[in-house]
Order: sequence, then C-alpha cells, then structure tokens
Amino acid sequence: MKHAKPLPSYLVQRFHGWKATSYENNKSWYRHLGEEGQHPRAMVISCCDSRVHVTSIFGADQGEFFIHRNIANLVPPYAPDGDHHGTSAAIEYAVTALKVAHVIVLGHSSCGGVQGCIDMCKGNAPHLEAKESFVGRWMDILKPRFSKVADIKDPKNQARQFEKHAVLASLENLLTFPFVKDRVEAGQLTLHGAWHDIAAGGVEVYDSEKKAFVAL
Amino acid sequence: MKHAKPLPSYLVQRFHGWKATSYENNKSWYRHLGEEGQHPRAMVISCCDSRVHVTSIFGADQGEFFIHRNIANLVPPYAPDGDHHGTSAAIEYAVTALKVAHVIVLGHSSCGGVQGCIDMCKGNAPHLEAKESFVGRWMDILKPRFSKVADIKDPKNQARQFEKHAVLASLENLLTFPFVKDRVEAGQLTLHGAWHDIAAGGVEVYDSEKKAFVAL
Amino acid sequence: MKHAKPLPSYLVQRFHGWKATSYENNKSWYRHLGEEGQHPRAMVISCCDSRVHVTSIFGADQGEFFIHRNIANLVPPYAPDGDHHGTSAAIEYAVTALKVAHVIVLGHSSCGGVQGCIDMCKGNAPHLEAKESFVGRWMDILKPRFSKVADIKDPKNQARQFEKHAVLASLENLLTFPFVKDRVEAGQLTLHGAWHDIAAGGVEVYDSEKKAFVAL
Amino acid sequence: MKHAKPLPSYLVQRFHGWKATSYENNKSWYRHLGEEGQHPRAMVISCCDSRVHVTSIFGADQGEFFIHRNIANLVPPYAPDGDHHGTSAAIEYAVTALKVAHVIVLGHSSCGGVQGCIDMCKGNAPHLEAKESFVGRWMDILKPRFSKVADIKDPKNQARQFEKHAVLASLENLLTFPFVKDRVEAGQLTLHGAWHDIAAGGVEVYDSEKKAFVAL
Amino acid sequence: MKHAKPLPSYLVQRFHGWKATSYENNKSWYRHLGEEGQHPRAMVISCCDSRVHVTSIFGADQGEFFIHRNIANLVPPYAPDGDHHGTSAAIEYAVTALKVAHVIVLGHSSCGGVQGCIDMCKGNAPHLEAKESFVGRWMDILKPRFSKVADIKDPKNQARQFEKHAVLASLENLLTFPFVKDRVEAGQLTLHGAWHDIAAGGVEVYDSEKKAFVAL
Amino acid sequence: MKHAKPLPSYLVQRFHGWKATSYENNKSWYRHLGEEGQHPRAMVISCCDSRVHVTSIFGADQGEFFIHRNIANLVPPYAPDGDHHGTSAAIEYAVTALKVAHVIVLGHSSCGGVQGCIDMCKGNAPHLEAKESFVGRWMDILKPRFSKVADIKDPKNQARQFEKHAVLASLENLLTFPFVKDRVEAGQLTLHGAWHDIAAGGVEVYDSEKKAFVAL
Amino acid sequence: MKHAKPLPSYLVQRFHGWKATSYENNKSWYRHLGEEGQHPRAMVISCCDSRVHVTSIFGADQGEFFIHRNIANLVPPYAPDGDHHGTSAAIEYAVTALKVAHVIVLGHSSCGGVQGCIDMCKGNAPHLEAKESFVGRWMDILKPRFSKVADIKDPKNQARQFEKHAVLASLENLLTFPFVKDRVEAGQLTLHGAWHDIAAGGVEVYDSEKKAFVAL
Amino acid sequence: MKHAKPLPSYLVQRFHGWKATSYENNKSWYRHLGEEGQHPRAMVISCCDSRVHVTSIFGADQGEFFIHRNIANLVPPYAPDGDHHGTSAAIEYAVTALKVAHVIVLGHSSCGGVQGCIDMCKGNAPHLEAKESFVGRWMDILKPRFSKVADIKDPKNQARQFEKHAVLASLENLLTFPFVKDRVEAGQLTLHGAWHDIAAGGVEVYDSEKKAFVAL
Repeated sequence: MKHAKPLPSYLVQRFHGWKATSYENNKSWYRHLGEEGQHPRAMVISCCDSRVHVTSIFGADQGEFFIHRNIANLVPPYAPDGDHHGTSAAIEYAVTALKVAHVIVLGHSSCGGVQGCIDMCKGNAPHLEAKESFVGRWMDILKPRFSKVADIKDPKNQARQFEKHAVLASLENLLTFPFVKDRVEAGQLTLHGAWHDIAAGGVEVYDSEKKAFVAL
Repeated sequence: MKHAKPLPSYLVQRFHGWKATSYENNKSWYRHLGEEGQHPRAMVISCCDSRVHVTSIFGADQGEFFIHRNIANLVPPYAPDGDHHGTSAAIEYAVTALKVAHVIVLGHSSCGGVQGCIDMCKGNAPHLEAKESFVGRWMDILKPRFSKVADIKDPKNQARQFEKHAVLASLENLLTFPFVKDRVEAGQLTLHGAWHDIAAGGVEVYDSEKKAFVAL
Repeated sequence: MKHAKPLPSYLVQRFHGWKATSYENNKSWYRHLGEEGQHPRAMVISCCDSRVHVTSIFGADQGEFFIHRNIANLVPPYAPDGDHHGTSAAIEYAVTALKVAHVIVLGHSSCGGVQGCIDMCKGNAPHLEAKESFVGRWMDILKPRFSKVADIKDPKNQARQFEKHAVLASLENLLTFPFVKDRVEAGQLTLHGAWHDIAAGGVEVYDSEKKAFVAL
Repeated sequence: MKHAKPLPSYLVQRFHGWKATSYENNKSWYRHLGEEGQHPRAMVISCCDSRVHVTSIFGADQGEFFIHRNIANLVPPYAPDGDHHGTSAAIEYAVTALKVAHVIVLGHSSCGGVQGCIDMCKGNAPHLEAKESFVGRWMDILKPRFSKVADIKDPKNQARQFEKHAVLASLENLLTFPFVKDRVEAGQLTLHGAWHDIAAGGVEVYDSEKKAFVAL
Repeated sequence: MKHAKPLPSYLVQRFHGWKATSYENNKSWYRHLGEEGQHPRAMVISCCDSRVHVTSIFGADQGEFFIHRNIANLVPPYAPDGDHHGTSAAIEYAVTALKVAHVIVLGHSSCGGVQGCIDMCKGNAPHLEAKESFVGRWMDILKPRFSKVADIKDPKNQARQFEKHAVLASLENLLTFPFVKDRVEAGQLTLHGAWHDIAAGGVEVYDSEKKAFVAL
Repeated sequence: MKHAKPLPSYLVQRFHGWKATSYENNKSWYRHLGEEGQHPRAMVISCCDSRVHVTSIFGADQGEFFIHRNIANLVPPYAPDGDHHGTSAAIEYAVTALKVAHVIVLGHSSCGGVQGCIDMCKGNAPHLEAKESFVGRWMDILKPRFSKVADIKDPKNQARQFEKHAVLASLENLLTFPFVKDRVEAGQLTLHGAWHDIAAGGVEVYDSEKKAFVAL
Repeated sequence: MKHAKPLPSYLVQRFHGWKATSYENNKSWYRHLGEEGQHPRAMVISCCDSRVHVTSIFGADQGEFFIHRNIANLVPPYAPDGDHHGTSAAIEYAVTALKVAHVIVLGHSSCGGVQGCIDMCKGNAPHLEAKESFVGRWMDILKPRFSKVADIKDPKNQARQFEKHAVLASLENLLTFPFVKDRVEAGQLTLHGAWHDIAAGGVEVYDSEKKAFVAL
Repeated sequence: MKHAKPLPSYLVQRFHGWKATSYENNKSWYRHLGEEGQHPRAMVISCCDSRVHVTSIFGADQGEFFIHRNIANLVPPYAPDGDHHGTSAAIEYAVTALKVAHVIVLGHSSCGGVQGCIDMCKGNAPHLEAKESFVGRWMDILKPRFSKVADIKDPKNQARQFEKHAVLASLENLLTFPFVKDRVEAGQLTLHGAWHDIAAGGVEVYDSEKKAFVAL
C-alpha cells in the first residue's frame, strides 16, 4: 500500500492530548472495555454527515451504542443474495450477536443524500441516475416514497418531510429482516425513529399512534 | 410503522441536558452548520463497535469528519452493478461531492467482525458460511488475506495482524474506485490507515515505506 | 489520597445536563430538601444490582425513600457487639431517628449474590467458603434457609424461590431488632416484602395470609 | 412471616403506571438485562439519604451503576474476620466479580450520620456512644478524623468539611482491601471522591493534586 | 521597492523543510483549502505578542480560525467614518462574509501594550501621550477602564486585572457594531473572552454569570 | 458583559490536551518566556485568513515572531492624526520597543480582501463602496494600484498580481513611517516581501533587483 | 605571539563571500544580536566531532542555542575545587546567567572519544591510561558505566550503546550541580538526551518512561 | 534518568525538515562521513555564545572543522595532573589523533565571559570570586592579562581589547602543550588567532609581524 500517508500532524497532536487526558483519566474503563468486550444497549443507524454526533446528543460514553453510519441513514430491504451488504451485516451482528435491545434510526435536517434523491426524482440530477452512481443507486431505496412528498411546494419543507420518510423507510425495511421481526414481536427488541434538526438542536421522535414525528 | 416506540426516557433526559448545555453554548455554531452546510476535511471509515469513538480520540468537533461506520471498517472492491452499495455510496459522496482531502481507515483491537472471519476461515463458524449470513458475506471481503496470517500461532496476535490487514484491504480496495485513484494521483486526496488499541489507548499508523504499522 | 481521579467526562457532561434541566426546574424543591431536611415515608432495602431502580419502579421523587442497598437485600440478625454494622445502622437510623412508617425489602430476579449462595450450598463455590470472602460470609445470613429450596430441580425456579427466601429472611431478622419489633407491635411501622422480575417488569408482594408472593 | 403487609396503595398505583409506560416502552432493554446479566461500568457508594439520587444526577440508566448505599457513604477498613460485612461484600463483588472500572464515593450536604458523629465527638450525643447504638458504632469509622475539623467555628462549615472527610476516609479504607489496591495499581480500577450539595445542586470532586474538592 | 531584502536563510531552510514534510503529507488538504476556500468556525482576536500561539493552544489546523492580531487584542468602538480601520474591517469580514459562529478575544499575561497603558495612566510614559504615538493612541481604547484597577497596589496583579479588562473592553466594543449585535441577538454568533497565562500555561474564560474569569 | 459565553467544549478539551503534552514538555521554556519577556527577531504582517499559518510554514516557536494579522496584510500610510491605528501601533511597537531586525509582509493566494478590492474597482461591489463598509475603506489602501493590473484578462492571474501588489504597497507604506525609514537606512532593520501559494505550498520572495517575486 | 599565522586563504575567501551575502542580507539581525545581547532558549552540549552540526540538524539561527562542544559530549560531576572546569563553567553560565530553558546533551555515532574509552576499558589503549593523557583522563568520566555494555559482543553495537551511556552519564552528572537540580525541580529547566546517527541522519531521544532511546 | 524530557516539538519538526531536505540531498556525503570517519583540516576553538556560528562565517561543511566551544574560547595552560580537562583533551585529540593542520582560536565582540572577568578584576563581581564559581575560576585563565587593558577608559573599547587578549592568551597556552609545540616547530601545525565583530560582521586576524589584529 504505497499510497498510505502519515496522519496530518494536528491529528497526531490531538491524539497525544487525548491520550494524556481523557485516556489517562479513564484508563481503567478502556481496559475493561478492551478485556471484557462490548455490551452496547442500542444500535444507532445514522448518517455519515459530519454535523451529526449521536454520542454527543445522547451523552453516551464508550461502550453504549453500536453505531452504523451510512448516507441518509438508510436500511435496504432484506436481500440474502450472497452479495456484500454492509448495512445488513451491521444489523445482523447487532441484533443476533450483541442482542441489543434498541435499534434507533436517526435522520437529520439538510441531508445531502436526501436532497440528491429529490433532485433525481425531479429529473434534475442525471448524473445520479447513471448506473455507476453509487449514491444514486443507494438513494433508490428511498425513491418509491417520493410520491408522498411530491406535492409539497416549499422546498425546505419538502426536504424535511422526505428526510423523515427516510427514517420510516428504514424502519419498515428493518422489519423485512426475519431476525428483526421475530425479536420485535417477542418483545426483545424495540425500534425507534427520530429526526434531528441540526440548526435548532431539536429532536423529533416518531409516535406510532399519532403517526407523526413529535418534538421531545 | 406501528412498531416504532418512544425513546427510552434516560435518552430523552440526556438529550434535554445536552440541549440546555452543549447546544445552548454552541447554538451559533450549530446554526452555522445547519445553514452553511458541512465542509468536513476528512472522511473516516471505522467500525460500528461501541468502543471506538473517533471524534473523541481526535478531539473533533461537529463538522470536521464525515464518518462511515460498518462492520470491521471494510471497503468492498469497486462494483458499479446498479445494486445498493452503502459503503461505496458514502465514499463517492465524500470524495466527489464534499471533496474531502483525507480518507482515514481506522481499525481496532478485539474486533468481533474480524474474529468471525478468522473463525470462518478456520472452519469454526458454519453459520457465517451460510449464504444468508450478511456478516459472513461481508467478511468475505477480507477472507482472501487470511493466508497471510494463517501461520500465526498466538490467537491474539493473529487477530491483531488480521485487523491490520482489514485496514490494508480497505485501502487497496479504495484505489479500485476510479474517482479515488484519480484524485490520489492528482494530489487532491490522501489515504491513511490506522489501527486503535482500545485497552491501551494507542494508535498505530501504516507507514508505507516501512510497510508496517507504527505507533504514534 | 493521591489515588483519587477526576470523574469520567461523560458523567461530568451529564451532571451539567441534569443541573441545567432537572435541577433548574425543581430548584425550589431541592432547596426545600436541603434546608428543611428529609422526611421520607419509607425505608427500602434493596440490592446493589445495577438493574434494580426502586425510584423508577415506584415513581419516587427525591425525599420519599430512605434507601439502603447491599448484596441480596439482606438484613443480618440483631447483634449489638460494638462492631461496625452498616445495615443495622441504617435500619436504626430510619426507624428511630427518621421514624419511617414502612420498611420495604425488595428482592429481584437473577440475583448474583443469591446464586453465589446456592453455589456455595451445593459445594460448587469453595472460594466463597474461605474465611476472607466477604461475599461468602455475607451470604451466610441466607444459608440456613437453603434446605427449603434444595429439592427444587429446575435451577431457574430454585433461584427464584431462594431470592424470595432472602426477602423473608430479612423480614424475620428485622423483627429481632427490639426497636423494630416495638414499633411494629405499636402499629407505628409496617414491614413489606416484595420481589421484582427484571425481565418481565413484574412485582410480587408477600401476602402473609396466603404465605406466598402474589403479583401486583 | 405474619407481620408482612400489602404495599401501600399509592405504591401499587405508581407501579402500575410505571409498568404501563416506562416498562412497556423499554421492555426489550429490561429483557436484555434480565437475560444477559448486568455489566455496570462503575460502583457508586452513596448515602441512604432520601434526597440523594445518583442515577438522576448522572443521567444513568438501568444497568450502568452498581450502587451500595449506607449511612454516610462509609467504607470500613479491611477486616476479614468471618463476620457479616455488607459494605465489604458489596465492594468485593463489584471489584472481583463484576470487574467495574470505577468506584465513586459520593458524599452529600446536611448528612444526618455525619452530624451525629460531630455531636458524638463533641459529647452531645450520649445515646450514640452506647455500645448497642449501631449508628454510633458505624460512625466510629469516621471519628478519628474529627481532630481535623474540630477547630472550625461555623457549625455548617464544620459539617461540610467533615462530610468531605467521610469521602476521604472511605477512599483511604478502600485501599486497605488487597483486591482494590492491586487493581488500582494495575490501572484496572480508578477511585473517585465526590460531594453533592443538595440545595444548590452542585457536585465537587476531589482533586488529588490540589488536595481539595473542586466544583465541576 | 529597492529596500526589500531576500529572506534570512534560516527561514528559507525551514520553509524547504516544511515544504518537504508537513506540506507534502497534507498536500491534499492545502489544495482543498486553496480551491474550495476557507470556512473557519471562529474568529480569534489576539495580541501580536510572539509568545501567544492560539493555534498551538487550541490544537487548530489550517482553516479553522480566522485570526486578527493587534497590540493588546483590542477592538475599537464602532466608528464608520470612512477612515482605514483594520480591526473593524477584519471583524466585518469575519462576521458578515465568512459568517463565523464564534468571536474569541484572547488576552494574555505580561502584555507590553497593557503595561504601556498603565504607565501612561500613571503619568510615567510621556512619549506614549504624544499625539504621534500610535501605541499611545491605540491604548486610549483601554484607558477609560483604568479607574477600575487604579487602586490595586501589587503591580503584577494590577497588570493582570487590566489585561482582563482589555478583553472585556473589546467584548463591549464588539457589541457596538450593529452587524455583531444583530447576529448575537439572533443566536447566530457567540462572543467569548479568555485570558492566557504564558508562564503557567493556563487559560481563564470570562463567565458572565459569575462576572469573573474562571480557569478552564 | 452578559453576552460572553463559555468556550466550545472541543476547544476546552484540546486546551487540556495541549496543557498535558506540549505545555508539560516545554514548561521551562514557557516559564522563561513569561518571566524574561519576549525577544522576537522579526515582525510578520500577514492576513487574517484561516489558511495562512506563518509559524507552521517557517517552523517558528513561541517567542520568535511578533505577528500582526489584518485583512490582506496591508500597511496604511503614516498618519499621526491621534486616531486609533491598530496596524501602525503594532509596527511602532515592534520597531521601536522590541527593536526587531526584520519586518516581513506575507501575502497569499485567493485572498478574499484583495478579491473584494478588485470587485470594488470594477464596480461590482457597491456594498463595499458604502462609507460604512470597513472592509471597503480598508481596501482603499490598495485601490490606487489597481491600474497596474487592470488590463490582465485572466481573473485568477489578475488576483495573484494584485495580491503581490498588496505586499508591495505595504512595503512602500512602511517606509513612510519615519522610525522605519531611519532604522532601515541605518542597517538596523530590513524589510521583506513574500507571497504564499496556499494550494501549491510555495513561497515567492520579492527580489528588489529583478523587481519581481521569485520562488524560493 | 609570533606563532600566529594568517588565516588560510580559502577561509578568507569564504568569509568575504559570507560578508557579502548572508551578512549583508541579515545585517540588521546581526546588529540586533550585537547590540541587544543573546537570549538563547537552549544550551546544547555536543561533541567536537567535525561531522556533527547541531545548528544544521535543528535549523537553528544565530542566537538560538548556547553551544558547548567537547570530546564525547561529557559533563563531569560537580566538583567546586577552584580548578579550571570549562564544561562546568559553560553550564553555570547558561543556567544561572542566561537562564536557558533547556539543556540538550547530544551524542552521536562512531564517536572517537567513546571508542577510545572502550579500548582503554578492554586494556587495548595503554597510552590513554597514562596520567598525562588528557583524552584518557577525560574519558574516565564515562568509564564506570562500561560494565553495562561489557557483555555486548558486536563491537559496533557495543559502541552505540556506550555512546548512549555517555549521554545518560552527562544527564546524571548535570543533576549533581545544585543550580541545575534546583531549576529542574522548580520547572524552570528541562533536560534532554539525544543521539545522532551520522550516516543514517537519524536522531533518537531518551524517553524516561520507556527508559530507552526512541527514534524521532 | 527520570528527568529527561522529550525534545520541544519545534525542534522535532525542524529535524524532520532537515532530514527530508538537507540530509536527503547529501545522503551520500553523510554516509561517507559516517563510514569513513572524520578528516577535519582544522580545529576551531570558539565561544559557546549563541551568536557565533563558525560554520556559517567560514562556509564550512560537515567534516571540515573539529570544533571545541567553551566560555570565552580559552585554552588553559598545560597541566597533566590526572584531572578532567575537557579543553586539553579536545586539543590533544585534534592534534595527536586527527592530526589537524590548523588550530584557529576565534574570539568575538560583547563576550559575556570576558566582561565577567573585567568586572571581577575591577572588584565588581564578588560572586565570581567565590571558590565555587566555575565561571570565575575559568576566567582566572585570562585574569593575569588584565593589567594590559586596565588603563583603557572607554568600557566598550576595553572589552574589545580584552577579548583579543583572550585569543592571545589561548595561543600562548597552546604552546605550553608539548605535542602542540613540537608539531608547530616541525611545520606540521599552524596556529591562528581571530576576532569576530558580531554586529558589524567583521573578522580581524592576528598579524604576528604587526603584533595587531587586522581586518580581513
């Protein structure tokens, strides 16, 4: 691998700072984690977006959340075709090996992936429609739901609603996994859908009775 | 989605705590991020493992890292077959849309996914060999490299070396993506491989001259 | 005390969150408690187990329960020998100084201390029989009752029954304290025995007429 | 056990409320805890006082803290004499069986036990000096440190300083337990001392460099 | 410009060293910055003093802070008179064009500019009072606050307090700029005041509730 | 100053990291600087731009450079009118009090201030022409030189040439300060002009014989 | 002094070249140094060896390092006997008069002085054992440490280890000087040990935690 | 050696710069030097003063000069008493082992050591007269010559003349070494005396015919 470079020096400096303070003060906990293994209580599926920090919002420490992050926090439908499915593998591992009690799907405002999907659905993003576009093909998971927001005039509002649909699509697809469905029905696993407003710092949670996202 | 439940109350409580302190004190930055968009300098590909917190180790703030997390921090080889490829989509988005300057692949000690792959390679994990096993199929990405560590007797050492191979495999696969290769060769993107020892708090970085991981 | 370390930062962060929300919203109540002292209505004796939260189960607020927690919620027999007796001191303070109206002994499912006692009684835990084993000597309080469950075949059921005997043993020992007995007989104090099923969320209460634990 | 009474009805009512809401929404997590066992990261030693809620202050959930509560959060010195030692048993279980990474001793303001010890030291509490007084004998653990605060004139300040000495005495006694000392020195366990001001909602942590309690 | 000379050779040598190491390893990030522009999150106003390195203290990388440095980190009051105002221009650019989220004013110990102002206020620096003294006229910004520290006897303490007043004066003057005030009130911009002790390596931050500088 | 907020926590965290590593390892040097004062060898006048780090490019340590940073690294002409002149004060202090041996004016590529001046000169930035625009009035210093680059067609090249004129304008204005001119002519002070290409990592220095900027 | 000769002409020629170029371009800095005195930040103790150029390796400029060079970079033990001690005088001047913040002892590969000491210790250098041999008597400072490397078979490796012991011996002897010890303990002075590999261009620094020399 | 600290980071950074540029470009020469040993043509005895860079003034490359630096470039008289004589050892090694052709003693302007000697001779530096003063005892070498400059009124001129006497004293003492005298008389070694004016950049060489220092 001749292309691998040293880490940028500011990261090296910060690492040494972390080592001398946070690690030093919590060494016993890190050792415990390293030796006793992880026992996370929840899996969180969130977006890769650099502005979304689940551990910060929910005051989590090392060892609490098993976190999968992909573009637009999407779960594809169950498809055991022998291919490489990163998201499905993460779900399988969390639910069957770690036996987490919660799966939380967390969407967020001004999501670039969701916006790309809107552009694609409106015919404004031909490059995303190309077969080779990984982003386009990934957002195909969300595409069928566009009809539900197609009529919303205000673009910002349309995006917000579609971002929430990304959460709902993922929750629905989660239930297509037999091992998820079984455990949900057995009361061993609960699913949660939430949406985070980055600028306002708010979190809305899906209320399955009101069939709506409700602010915490 | 009748199965979605309210968030556990301790998370709600912690969220309100975060909102009243961290968010309140940094409101202007969150607004800035919400309104001006993200400009991350690096993409980080790390493991879902609950014990790995990149933002903590590298003192990162909201907006600095575009983070993809999957089992064993693997990058599959380039395969534009029109299917859903979450990892490939994340890489495409980071490199071509966000134009990040760095992609950092971060492996870690006692990785459950890598251990599963070792078990599978040794014939001790038939359930992972089943076609329907998403974890097994995902770890197939790493499988071809097993021969390089097969002779290591000490199981802990074997796992560590294989965890580092997972980083190298990802770096190599990254270069199979044309848009990654082009930008690396044009000096617009650099790749970095690192491995984190959870218990000891150390980070080793791949040195392409020494062809070895070297402690920071 | 050179060994004392700063608190882990996630606890500091959560404390600040609590201070800015729960405390802020209930400041007057906390002040009242701080200035007027405590007037709890009940003492609860429960286990140290991290899964048992009496205040959560019984919706208690600051100031309601005087809570003593030890391994397996045991009360030792009255023994005024001038030695340090933490549990007996707590009972004395609650009953004679605070004059609580109730003492509730709360056992729970899958109790590690009770399981250790079973192992010891079956001869499977020699390390607990060593004189220096504090856990072993503490569980000696419960040991004499093992004969009552020795014949139960199913290990899980045996444990549950023994957990309930731990509650009854404590209730009986409580009555060996003169100041408890006097106040119970004077109608100034009532004793209660309960058992909590962690997984199922149930509570069973001892019914002295049915001589059995009955689900609420 | 003829003296055991049914639970007071307000508690039964609250339990049913908890069961229908909190438990129902977190059923999977409670099941997980019931089936997979506890993996707490810290032991907390706090006072029985009804006004001290560790889980609330530190935003903890079921499963996070192994909590021992006794009068004045005291740890007696190591004494493997075959007697029943509840506090020592709890520490032994947390450190050697659960392998917690932290032990946090949490004192608090207006502690009745500490006040009783002051009264006893000043000769104002003959009933506590009686051999049969469990509270008196328990507070003997703290007594030797009274000389360090004896000169403080202001009674409230004297009490606060002595409450903090209770924390320090416990930390020192903790180190007399061989299994605690060994793990502290091996970097597998860290000790923390803190003091909580109930009325003001503050927490002060012992800083071993400054040799003083410092507000968070 | 016949007076311009070649750079001293040691700087040329160091530049070549930087080019061959730091630049080479971070080329892609520098290119990204050069091509995509800057997106700093904060403006820092600090002193020209050679001993103050904001980027070092705060582990900042290229692109994070928009830094204005002048004598004694002063902000003059808003004065749109058509004249050349370097500090005001820097603030306007950071706040209205770059839309930074934070403005941090950082003072420091043993500040020569502040000491000059003290000397001037005490009548010991007639050369600074001359109309042509740029340093004297610049320090006039701080002069009105001298009365607040005039009574402090200890010269070192007096200087420290006045250095902190320089930070406060700047914060107050910042709010006289309409575009600053508007954004602060809209929650889009936050102001921070800090003071750095060079010899001790400490940083104190102004706490607007305690109305005092508090050590980090 | 009720508007001052606590520092963002990631900066606090990084500060603690710096304190525990860089400061700790160089404590004696920081103390020396704090106690013996600064003796910088050069003054550097550079831009506030977040991408320009003089200390990094020239490998400088604390205590080497007295650094003034303003928009577009401009020096206004000598104007002792009794007004607040931040740049002039910095120059006066460096040259007459610190007696630096060098003044280095460092311009850079893609400078937002210089671009604003071009826009203004071309009539494309009416907001900068408003009397209240501090940025506009500041860039007036550079405006008279626009005629020298007005004919350059390629906008990028035009900007680069104008950025270099900003350096030359500053050098010329420096010589209008009597105390600068005297010391330059007495051989006690030398002036240097340089321009930094952010993306390419290059530095060009003004060669007064060739009347051109030449790459190092 | 009739034996003094004119300088060799090649040195005269180079001097004139230096005067016309380096000096001319940095005249102001040389003047500043001549007039304002030296303020070096570090003392370096290195070997007279013609192949070791500290200022080149560390990019130092005139005024940065106070350099003492002797055979094998040795510091003799403190011996205030009124004799001429050149090394001790240099250390005293640097530490007490110049108040440097660092003392760096720099050893190097293939050191002739160290090799002579090895030969002497092995009985192969009787001329060095003669009382009149200044080199022999100087190397006596290092001699007692020979037992630590006596068993190393490979001569090259033995020499390297002994060269590093020369650094350590000097560091230890430095601490026998009361004025060094006092300032080290007061945090006003730090000591550093390093070893330079001439052929490979490497530098290793002594790590007092690892008790070993570690490559930079 | 627990007191040894890591090198200051700016030196580490500069080293890496040197390694990547100067060393890289001259690797073969450094290797040659490392493998073939040194063959310097001259020994230079100069002062530790941070402002004197012999290699810079005389354009020397690695391998040309064997350099001994001590306070005031003094050579003590020959004294083979078995004590540690660093300067004598360096001379012996250069002349008898390396067989250099030249010994150049280089004095310089504003020498702190020489100034100390003047102060001591005038009775103004009692601390230097103390037996324990290494600087004082070292300067005793020069003391006997003070009578030759005692009458010079102008302090600056007096210092310059005495600095030159330091050079002459060293040359004379050199000839007390038998191995120096022999080789000088055999025409195998020449001695040179020079004096460097730091501020003016001049070098004066002792002309034994004119019995004066003459500018080059």
